[in-house]
Amino acid sequence: MNITLLVIAKTQDERIKTLCREYSERIGHYVNFSIEVLSLPKKKKFANREQQREAEGKLILSFVHKSDTLILLDELGKEFSSPEFSRWIEKQQNQSVKHLVFVIGGPYGVSKSVRQSARQTLALSKMTFSHQMVRLIFVEQLYRAYTIIRGESYHH
Amino acid sequence: MNITLLVIAKTQDERIKTLCREYSERIGHYVNFSIEVLSLPKKKKFANREQQREAEGKLILSFVHKSDTLILLDELGKEFSSPEFSRWIEKQQNQSVKHLVFVIGGPYGVSKSVRQSARQTLALSKMTFSHQMVRLIFVEQLYRAYTIIRGESYHH
Repeated sequence: MNITLLVIAKTQDERIKTLCREYSERIGHYVNFSIEVLSLPKKKKFANREQQREAEGKLILSFVHKSDTLILLDELGKEFSSPEFSRWIEKQQNQSVKHLVFVIGGPYGVSKSVRQSARQTLALSKMTFSHQMVRLIFVEQLYRAYTIIRGESYHH
Repeated sequence: MNITLLVIAKTQDERIKTLCREYSERIGHYVNFSIEVLSLPKKKKFANREQQREAEGKLILSFVHKSDTLILLDELGKEFSSPEFSRWIEKQQNQSVKHLVFVIGGPYGVSKSVRQSARQTLALSKMTFSHQMVRLIFVEQLYRAYTIIRGESYHH
């Protein structure tokens, strides 16, 4: 199984970037994992949030293949404990999912088309985190999930 | 109102430390806030987790005054959305709470005595985060709560 985290580009704090990179490297010991940063043209201006969401949604879907399993990360989604999330990941593997693509929407959420294309919506918390924090929290949880699957000591 | 985050010391990633410091400074524009890092003597050895929890619990409670309002952060606690958390913070202020003390236990949880002394147990997520991540997530949420209370644009 391959796992990708799709994010819409924003100026990123260098510390969060390097922390995410370190967790990604650790995840890489268990599964093929990458973070794909998508960018809309910088000069593009939007009349409103809805237009921005639509443009971001098109961009996101252009990177998702028909055979991919798209999972939306959104605070209104289903919540898991860390052990439950690890079992969910394991289940995807057992069901021969080839490419699990997690997507984090922009600051104003995701378009309807992205929401409809998603197989499932998961929440890392009921709380709203900054775009950068969501990336960091996700990679820490994915790393944790694999240490749980392998019975390693990271998770207490 | 004063707010304190009590944490048990551990080697900390310098990047997470500086991120926490930056959020703390931002929170300081709205309320007196500090992070208190408590340490058990380094040479102390514990026969088991229960003993460590007890020693950490004693240390925590030695820093909490009778008039303080102790809140335990634990993934089994009550969950709030960010707007709900901001309303909860506002309510504490309106109820003339003088000192709100949030405590994050060690890696093996907190002692029974800390649990019993807590007025409430709140969860930042159902998921288990690393000790360092919890600190960062908490300060980001507390900062966010105050921007919501003030109607500022940080939170969408």
